Amino acid sequence: MERYKYILDESAIPTHWYNVQADLPQPLLPPIDPATKMPVDLAKMTAIFPAECVAQEVSSERWIEIPDEVRDKLAIWRPTPLHRARRLEKVLDTPARIYYKYEGVSPAGSHKLNTAVAQAYYLKKEGGTRCTTETGAGQWGSSMAMAAKLFGLACQVYMVRISYDQKPYRRILMETWGAKVDASPSPLTAAGRAILAKDPDTPGSLSMAIAEGMEDALNTKGSKYLLGSLLNHVIMHQTVIGQEARKQMEMAGDYPDIIIGCCAGGSSFGGLAFPFLRDRLVNGAKTRFMPVEPTACPSLTRGEFRYDYGDSNKLTPLIPMHTLGHTFIPAKIHAGGLRHHGMGPLISHLYNLGHMEPRAYNQMKVFESARLFAQCEGFIPAPESAHGLRAAIDEALRCKAAGRAEVILFNMSGHGLFDLSAYDEFNNGRMQPYDLPEEEIRRTLKDIESQPRTEEIAAALAGMSK
Amino acid sequence: MERYKYILDESAIPTHWYNVQADLPQPLLPPIDPATKMPVDLAKMTAIFPAECVAQEVSSERWIEIPDEVRDKLAIWRPTPLHRARRLEKVLDTPARIYYKYEGVSPAGSHKLNTAVAQAYYLKKEGGTRCTTETGAGQWGSSMAMAAKLFGLACQVYMVRISYDQKPYRRILMETWGAKVDASPSPLTAAGRAILAKDPDTPGSLSMAIAEGMEDALNTKGSKYLLGSLLNHVIMHQTVIGQEARKQMEMAGDYPDIIIGCCAGGSSFGGLAFPFLRDRLVNGAKTRFMPVEPTACPSLTRGEFRYDYGDSNKLTPLIPMHTLGHTFIPAKIHAGGLRHHGMGPLISHLYNLGHMEPRAYNQMKVFESARLFAQCEGFIPAPESAHGLRAAIDEALRCKAAGRAEVILFNMSGHGLFDLSAYDEFNNGRMQPYDLPEEEIRRTLKDIESQPRTEEIAAALAGMSK
Repeated sequence: MERYKYILDESAIPTHWYNVQADLPQPLLPPIDPATKMPVDLAKMTAIFPAECVAQEVSSERWIEIPDEVRDKLAIWRPTPLHRARRLEKVLDTPARIYYKYEGVSPAGSHKLNTAVAQAYYLKKEGGTRCTTETGAGQWGSSMAMAAKLFGLACQVYMVRISYDQKPYRRILMETWGAKVDASPSPLTAAGRAILAKDPDTPGSLSMAIAEGMEDALNTKGSKYLLGSLLNHVIMHQTVIGQEARKQMEMAGDYPDIIIGCCAGGSSFGGLAFPFLRDRLVNGAKTRFMPVEPTACPSLTRGEFRYDYGDSNKLTPLIPMHTLGHTFIPAKIHAGGLRHHGMGPLISHLYNLGHMEPRAYNQMKVFESARLFAQCEGFIPAPESAHGLRAAIDEALRCKAAGRAEVILFNMSGHGLFDLSAYDEFNNGRMQPYDLPEEEIRRTLKDIESQPRTEEIAAALAGMSK
Repeated sequence: MERYKYILDESAIPTHWYNVQADLPQPLLPPIDPATKMPVDLAKMTAIFPAECVAQEVSSERWIEIPDEVRDKLAIWRPTPLHRARRLEKVLDTPARIYYKYEGVSPAGSHKLNTAVAQAYYLKKEGGTRCTTETGAGQWGSSMAMAAKLFGLACQVYMVRISYDQKPYRRILMETWGAKVDASPSPLTAAGRAILAKDPDTPGSLSMAIAEGMEDALNTKGSKYLLGSLLNHVIMHQTVIGQEARKQMEMAGDYPDIIIGCCAGGSSFGGLAFPFLRDRLVNGAKTRFMPVEPTACPSLTRGEFRYDYGDSNKLTPLIPMHTLGHTFIPAKIHAGGLRHHGMGPLISHLYNLGHMEPRAYNQMKVFESARLFAQCEGFIPAPESAHGLRAAIDEALRCKAAGRAEVILFNMSGHGLFDLSAYDEFNNGRMQPYDLPEEEIRRTLKDIESQPRTEEIAAALAGMSK
């Protein structure tokens, strides 16, 4: 019998997170306060985030121990399986060996729960009693709801109004796990009330929901705001994925030539990639790394590396990243988790250093691959995860054309059981391609022309440190 | 670190199915042709079902080899994990050790896929090119759709109209796996057209959908009709569950005192229970077996053991089972898979022989337990599976009161991610208890008074065999 799955016992759950910052040949540029144009004061961030998370954000320690209480929660669903996609290989008739790490087995349905349990733990440990967060389609909110319940924390989720109305299943999931979920903008915060006063029928946005979550956390005793991607410590919490995958690839007797995953904030991609990237950074391994984004939101493949706000309301510090400009509004593609105008700073930085080969795909091609995968491998990919899948398929077809038996590893970061309406659109020929005109990108990039340049800030910081 | 999961490598997928019929102290009564009052001619059944399935239906061979091609498909998701529900134990403060076998990890979300791949294999092997089936909420239809695709078979699903309209997600799932799904009654069959002519707005029923699926299979070259529960061979295909669980309980160093599962046709319950029941039948082990049904459809706890039709349209042979009468229409509880007027013949027979201790629960109590489970163990139980969970919790509480550290094993036969609207009803106090008045049962039992009695048939058969 051919072998399909490489399974680890829960004793193999990693004991440490891997912090890629320790192995960067050049450090990350810091976030900048737009008012002072100076690096933001980290002490202020502890008013919003748990102190331990803030410390991890700038740590250069290579291995950070995972607390036993966090490993104890990870054991609910980890280690996740590594699958050899032999059925897909046969259909593609490729000599490539295709592996995928399947994070969809978590109760919340994606990798997001890996960091949610860590953040909830630190909040609890530091005396917190409640977390606030925002969610769009609900992947992050549902992970946070479950993690909060596991640690006995209250959880307040601000869910973007239009998703709250159109996607009730994830809202119900959060409520079943004990979270309080309100449509954002809500009357619960000053930010929400101000928006509602102007436009009572607004569909809401992630920016609005972030504003509400932060205000709530700042104003409510015992509360902190927890974020699901983009930040360094969040990505670090995901490195359990890649560490497990390394052991599983060893069991399979293979080592990846190419590592692929969908990418926006960078947490699922970095989580799988960084424990392998270390071999390239430290030992010069030739493995290729391929973050995949939608053509409708191509920050890495068509954006600029600039200091830009993380949100359209300019609430965040200025962040050094590949961006389309914070006024860029992505088309309503189904991969909601990839609809961000900027690429995560760590992935942006690694791209600048020559370690990343980004790809972008239209959602029509993405869903074509997702359905093919479902029909031979069984599982229904999340629309986000299917972006990585598409790139993996194209690499396997390249291997076929070239007659090369390369080893491809990609991250199936979540299941698509709550995204079936998107499959319905595709199955019935109603899906929109949402091609992105060049003039649209030029316009939104123009909006950030006056912001400080990364070169200027880098030079200023270099001068200060002399 | 405490251990939560007992995981097997795919080399541990069972090589044989266990056929409990080989160990029955008395054989099952046969299905009866209502016209002749004689056992049905099995040869006729091969017009509808694959011949190998019909042979297995009456086999007394103890171990039937699982074809490699079937094991190859089972390896997509099997072996499934055995979980120790330590978090639930802590919340209940019970000395009992609670284990659950989690079948929700299958791509289709339940145990149903175990028999779907076996039936699809036999159909293909016997030269078939297409299967037809019926589905209510879609658990079985989606399993059949996926299994058919894996073996390159076409798949036609007749989906009860009201579910087709109200539960689009499972319909989309089936279509994504390549099945053709039509709302039943449909214009595709004479049976469907006749019903539609009388009542164009009918919500449909499982009986109607069965009639369409059978007619289609009989009239279409290369087609057979495949059924997801109730039949002996279907339950036998599920014994991979219990065989794996035996190995996993050994890994845990425990042996169950009580085995629990929701039960209607008997396939998920029998699948887990029978490989353990063998120790009781053959070696006199004292393990208790607890099939659990809804109080809204209490065939085993309040019905009569009678020959009755399997469906309200009297299409099936007469089947010896505990029944509420084929005119009994269960209330619209959310556990759609448990809404059958009759209990599966194997479970009914084993109950008569004194090996079963059935329980019945109201769905209010069931969902109370399901939410508690979700909040401590993470996974969202299917409404059906949560019936078994409820009984497991009550047994654990009995152990607490008695200070007994018994070992409880139950079958979490599927996830409830497509049943979240039911959780929403419960969370918001809108769920109906659907208590069942005694006069309702008396009325429908009266409707079957004229049917042949099991004692008469048994006596007649005994006479014939002399």
